[in-house]
Amino acid sequence: MAGDEDGGLAAYLDEVAAGTPAPGGGSAAAVVGALAAALGEMVANLTLGRAKYAEAEASLRPARDRLTALRESLLESAAADEVAYQTYQDAASLPRTSDGEKTERAVAMQRALTAATDVPMGVARSVYEVAEILQSVARLGNPHVRSDAALGALVAEAALRGTLLNVRGNAAMLKDRELALTYVTDADRLEEAGREAAQRAYHTAMGVADEHGSR
Amino acid sequence: MAGDEDGGLAAYLDEVAAGTPAPGGGSAAAVVGALAAALGEMVANLTLGRAKYAEAEASLRPARDRLTALRESLLESAAADEVAYQTYQDAASLPRTSDGEKTERAVAMQRALTAATDVPMGVARSVYEVAEILQSVARLGNPHVRSDAALGALVAEAALRGTLLNVRGNAAMLKDRELALTYVTDADRLEEAGREAAQRAYHTAMGVADEHGSR
Repeated sequence: MAGDEDGGLAAYLDEVAAGTPAPGGGSAAAVVGALAAALGEMVANLTLGRAKYAEAEASLRPARDRLTALRESLLESAAADEVAYQTYQDAASLPRTSDGEKTERAVAMQRALTAATDVPMGVARSVYEVAEILQSVARLGNPHVRSDAALGALVAEAALRGTLLNVRGNAAMLKDRELALTYVTDADRLEEAGREAAQRAYHTAMGVADEHGSR
Repeated sequence: MAGDEDGGLAAYLDEVAAGTPAPGGGSAAAVVGALAAALGEMVANLTLGRAKYAEAEASLRPARDRLTALRESLLESAAADEVAYQTYQDAASLPRTSDGEKTERAVAMQRALTAATDVPMGVARSVYEVAEILQSVARLGNPHVRSDAALGALVAEAALRGTLLNVRGNAAMLKDRELALTYVTDADRLEEAGREAAQRAYHTAMGVADEHGSR
């Protein structure tokens, strides 16, 4: 129960709320993505093994297993985001008296920034996959809990948009403009495809024929 | 760090993912709302007490304190949602052999359903308030972390829409159609106002003049 884990869930929220830079938005977005995966797993788990939905079994089981793996990887990314942020802060704290030191610090900061951009980019890819899988969960899942798949889709879309804020924010600080452009182009592509997948999952779950349904 | 609380955050996600009805979507939506509040608090906490942003102090301090209270209340609602669901399940399990028992069971189920609708309705009101407050956080917060206020707004919008799915789903099962209509009307009103507030907070944080900015 949510009320029970005052040492866990509540403690994590306390840490987010605190005036310390980590865990920050990057970690929170990954956690929201993990929650979207968990909601999809719940719908699948309340469908699997029931005679009534036996036909869905073959598709839903691998979908559920993949969501579990994505949830774990998203929680790892939440932790990795905090490490990446700290590495960047450490680089920024390097001495900058001599010209050599200044150059070294700038190089270390750019390297840390690249790593700190790769983390939310990985989160975005995972959340996109969660949204893709939620479509089949929404189509095949137990109708009694299908609105939880719709919630999962809403939450996945927020996680995707949120994590891409960090990709774009970090990319804007990269001196390597070609690399920055690659990140931004990937972010735009993932945002479009991911939001489309999430919205399709939502509409499927809500039983509304979505605009892509007739293709 | 997110990686540390494998007994807390990860355990909560495990429980959501499991094939048990609680914690379900209602609890998860409340937790997502609590995370939106926490993100707003973080931005406020990284602004308060800094000479550079002294002007924001008088508005941001009560905003931050209110977000903390809303976060706590949302976590309580997450737990209350699980209790309300269990109460409904208990009512559904009452004996239904005699006509008297059938009536008693039906009355108990409708009473439990009303309580189970009040919880997500309360969550929706709290999340709406979070979205309202995020607007000032987005306007007054430390620009270096303002994108976290934008993330908070995205997350709040998903939480609001998600919790209202439960309000509408439960209302649809209420035999008292007048009461059901009241819930649905309130849900529609809250959804419109809350999404507008969240989107305004998002655009403010992103530095985009939103369409309501010139009113």
